[in-house]
Amino acid sequence: MPLRDSPTVVMGHGGGGQMSAELVEHIFVPAFANTVLSGLADSAVVSLGGAKLAFSTDSFVVRPLFFPGGSIGDLAVNGTVNDLAMSGAQAAYLSCGFILEEGTELQVVGEIAQRLGRAAKRAGVSVLTGDTKVVDAGHGDGVFVNTAGIGLIPDGIDIRPQRAQPGDVVIVSGAIAVHGIAIMSVREGLEFGIEIQSDCAPLNGLVQTMLAVAPDVHVLRDPTRGGLATSLNEIAQASGVGIELTERLLPVPEAVANGCSVLGLDPLYVANEGKLVAIVAPSDADATLAAMRTHPYGAEAVAIGTCVEAHAGMVVTRTGLGGTRVVDTPIGEQLPRIC
Amino acid sequence: MPLRDSPTVVMGHGGGGQMSAELVEHIFVPAFANTVLSGLADSAVVSLGGAKLAFSTDSFVVRPLFFPGGSIGDLAVNGTVNDLAMSGAQAAYLSCGFILEEGTELQVVGEIAQRLGRAAKRAGVSVLTGDTKVVDAGHGDGVFVNTAGIGLIPDGIDIRPQRAQPGDVVIVSGAIAVHGIAIMSVREGLEFGIEIQSDCAPLNGLVQTMLAVAPDVHVLRDPTRGGLATSLNEIAQASGVGIELTERLLPVPEAVANGCSVLGLDPLYVANEGKLVAIVAPSDADATLAAMRTHPYGAEAVAIGTCVEAHAGMVVTRTGLGGTRVVDTPIGEQLPRIC
Repeated sequence: MPLRDSPTVVMGHGGGGQMSAELVEHIFVPAFANTVLSGLADSAVVSLGGAKLAFSTDSFVVRPLFFPGGSIGDLAVNGTVNDLAMSGAQAAYLSCGFILEEGTELQVVGEIAQRLGRAAKRAGVSVLTGDTKVVDAGHGDGVFVNTAGIGLIPDGIDIRPQRAQPGDVVIVSGAIAVHGIAIMSVREGLEFGIEIQSDCAPLNGLVQTMLAVAPDVHVLRDPTRGGLATSLNEIAQASGVGIELTERLLPVPEAVANGCSVLGLDPLYVANEGKLVAIVAPSDADATLAAMRTHPYGAEAVAIGTCVEAHAGMVVTRTGLGGTRVVDTPIGEQLPRIC
Repeated sequence: MPLRDSPTVVMGHGGGGQMSAELVEHIFVPAFANTVLSGLADSAVVSLGGAKLAFSTDSFVVRPLFFPGGSIGDLAVNGTVNDLAMSGAQAAYLSCGFILEEGTELQVVGEIAQRLGRAAKRAGVSVLTGDTKVVDAGHGDGVFVNTAGIGLIPDGIDIRPQRAQPGDVVIVSGAIAVHGIAIMSVREGLEFGIEIQSDCAPLNGLVQTMLAVAPDVHVLRDPTRGGLATSLNEIAQASGVGIELTERLLPVPEAVANGCSVLGLDPLYVANEGKLVAIVAPSDADATLAAMRTHPYGAEAVAIGTCVEAHAGMVVTRTGLGGTRVVDTPIGEQLPRIC
């Protein structure tokens, strides 16, 4: 695809949709020559000293820094732990870089560090190494955090966005669109009946539980920016399969559906921070679902669709009326600074 | 040491001196419980899947983005490659996170990516995985970059800030204070006779050359923020030795000395981005120096002092007049946003 005609960076370049993909394709991939190996996966997989490792990074610029169900510190841990888990890796070590704005209250920095430390403990990872930079007031926004992580991939695990096959079952681990609506509700001061808490959570334990019963998971993905629609489109394109969802099976809590409705958003495009989508062989689907439901972060796991030979590279959803509609990749940014 | 009485973040918290150390000691270390293992080293050393790895991260907020001799892209690669090299590791893989400010010219982002890619190629590392976030105009400053890196440490290498011993020789790989003065000259529009180019360079090749002739290097450090004075104080404190420098042996180019003089700076406190300080046993000093001088980035390597039993934890320098003065750790920020 061509780089959209814009001389400057716009918010959409950070939205995880088509504009983000264009930036990577036209600016970063050529610049880094053949050295960008991660392709479309959430983490890169490499060998080093005989160990098979996953390696991933994310920066976090969420606003506000604290929100119902989490904080930038929780996101910084869980985001990277989850990216590693989507390669089947057990996250082991994190690095942590802070960019602080001059004038930010030290008490706020301390609270974020505390939350980050607790989240690391909960996920079973160690923060090994860090860095702090300070920028002048007016050239940052309180606190930005970057984490990178490394984890070990067990022998025999091969989880990649290219491995979806016609017939495979599409499973989601629980309710979608919760994180994005939780952030928007506090940012915009909206109320949707009850307080919506972010689903921000570490998924490495859930993945281990799944692999214990069915190690041949084909694809895993955590649908953050751009939501489930973006993740499924990336998988469909990487694997050359079609994906067909059944709309009534999509788990959207009522308060979240109300929030989407008020904000004019489709829950398929809203960010999650504690959910995964899994693509598994039909013979593994029941065992995988049963195992997921034993884990707190997979208690509401459900099959939502299948991979098909038709419309390769495209995602469609069957509506309640028996029709189908195309679920495309979003172009830019629906919800800015959600993570 | 106590946390200095300030309710908010000030520029000095990012200066790499005492205020940075206090922030780490009082806010980050307690928050991350016992999980911060890197201690005072430039990179953390861990075992994973049987491999001995170094792991490090740095964020880069330098202003301006391009400067004589380098750019934020060059710094982002060399900074992390050098942190890994200071554990004796050969950097293998980098992650790269961009935080872009809305409204930044895409051409600028592209040029930085190109420079980053070329620097990675020159250093022999692959950029494996990345992330891009966008913040609204007025909440960033063009481009911030974070890199994290992993590298393999060969068997038998044990380079740590705790290993300096009385009698050891202190070697610096070349002229000091060059990067900081190069940045200040363009930022302030000052001229010091000739254009001063940053010394920004990858030091992994130089370290390999050193280890080939004398694998028992005790300590390595790249004296970036806070300059040589800060690195040597950290080593003296970690090892419990005194360090005695001879002032006339410190390599400071004339134009850099002029710049320091105009700006009122001591070159011992000004950042380097392509220099290392090595602490080696006296029996290894000549061979190490000879090997360093065969490498382009060590051609002007020189012994500048020794480790002593006296004044443990302190660095002193012998002046031209035969006296000594204490070289303390700087408190805050001499030169903001230098890397």
